[in-house]
Amino acid sequence: MQIAIVLFDRFTSLDAVGPYEMLQHLPGAETVFVAERTGPVRNESGSIALVADRTLADVPSPDVVVVPGGPGQTGQMDNEALLGWLREADATSTWTTSVCTGSLLLAAAGLLSGRRATSHWLALDTLKEFGVEPTGERVVFDGKYVTAAGVSSGIDMGLALLGRIAGDEHAMSVQLLTEYDPQPPYDAGSPAKAPAALADEFRARRATLLR
Amino acid sequence: MQIAIVLFDRFTSLDAVGPYEMLQHLPGAETVFVAERTGPVRNESGSIALVADRTLADVPSPDVVVVPGGPGQTGQMDNEALLGWLREADATSTWTTSVCTGSLLLAAAGLLSGRRATSHWLALDTLKEFGVEPTGERVVFDGKYVTAAGVSSGIDMGLALLGRIAGDEHAMSVQLLTEYDPQPPYDAGSPAKAPAALADEFRARRATLLR
Repeated sequence: MQIAIVLFDRFTSLDAVGPYEMLQHLPGAETVFVAERTGPVRNESGSIALVADRTLADVPSPDVVVVPGGPGQTGQMDNEALLGWLREADATSTWTTSVCTGSLLLAAAGLLSGRRATSHWLALDTLKEFGVEPTGERVVFDGKYVTAAGVSSGIDMGLALLGRIAGDEHAMSVQLLTEYDPQPPYDAGSPAKAPAALADEFRARRATLLR
Repeated sequence: MQIAIVLFDRFTSLDAVGPYEMLQHLPGAETVFVAERTGPVRNESGSIALVADRTLADVPSPDVVVVPGGPGQTGQMDNEALLGWLREADATSTWTTSVCTGSLLLAAAGLLSGRRATSHWLALDTLKEFGVEPTGERVVFDGKYVTAAGVSSGIDMGLALLGRIAGDEHAMSVQLLTEYDPQPPYDAGSPAKAPAALADEFRARRATLLR
């Protein structure tokens, strides 16, 4: 089994590393970071670089595709090199997945039409423009398409997907090994729970934040 | 303000990226990945590489030090280049922090003697060998020393530290932006909650798992 995690300029690092940390424990699977070109790929602030070890062309038919989001997603929405690869990889994948605004790239590639999906809470409405039915759930399974909400939700997605692929017991063992027993010091992780003023401020700055 | 996140061969990626993702949003702060040598540093499975942009020598006095753990930690316990840097950086740091078995490196550097601290649940007993009082808490503040439990707990640590540095409202805004409203699909993230057989199996394989 081959798991391909896609990188592009100005991606969000936890979008990629959250599911990676869960899925890398899959027995017998090869996990590979792919991008248009091999070499370091930097996140939106430029302060972290992950290395793409293979080009998209090197990995034409992964079993699992993981597409992170991040401000750089907006710059990829008409990048046929990436969108074409997503379509090609999806043609033979067992699971096609995304975290955060990565779902907008799957949508732009035409892969989510008529399906239920999620995205970062600030980007849910944009899914509709591609004929996708947005849901407020944190992780959405629709057939072989698995989409996760903002940034940190990729950990929950990775663990849920691991359960589908390798069984509940294996997923629980990975949860225990990564000590994923979250205890956030605040309860402000969704627009419904956060102070209303914070959510409103982000909504007002939405266009800037998403790119 | 300068935040230095330490990399070493066979570190665990989420240990570093979890707190990074929270702390990178600190206004006016520079976050930098450091290692003995610049360039790609790979995790325990070799399938992910983060780039160290500066050497330890380039960053002698960061305000915040973050030390991840991972199987490679065992190989650093007598690495004076790293331990000496930790002591030197700690002499002027505002916060000295760790995730997972990174606390064993702080302990080996002599920085946690007589203090309360935590680590990966499989490594808590090892802290005692360094005169450190292990606690079962997920994030432990003792003076300027902040230690987190296994792997994913670095996200909680990063958010809690962000609150101390920049205030609760800023930390909540980062929690909302990263949509950190965890909904693990299983409840097996600590040895107390996981099936007993899984925890026992890991205890039996402890020596192998930790290196």
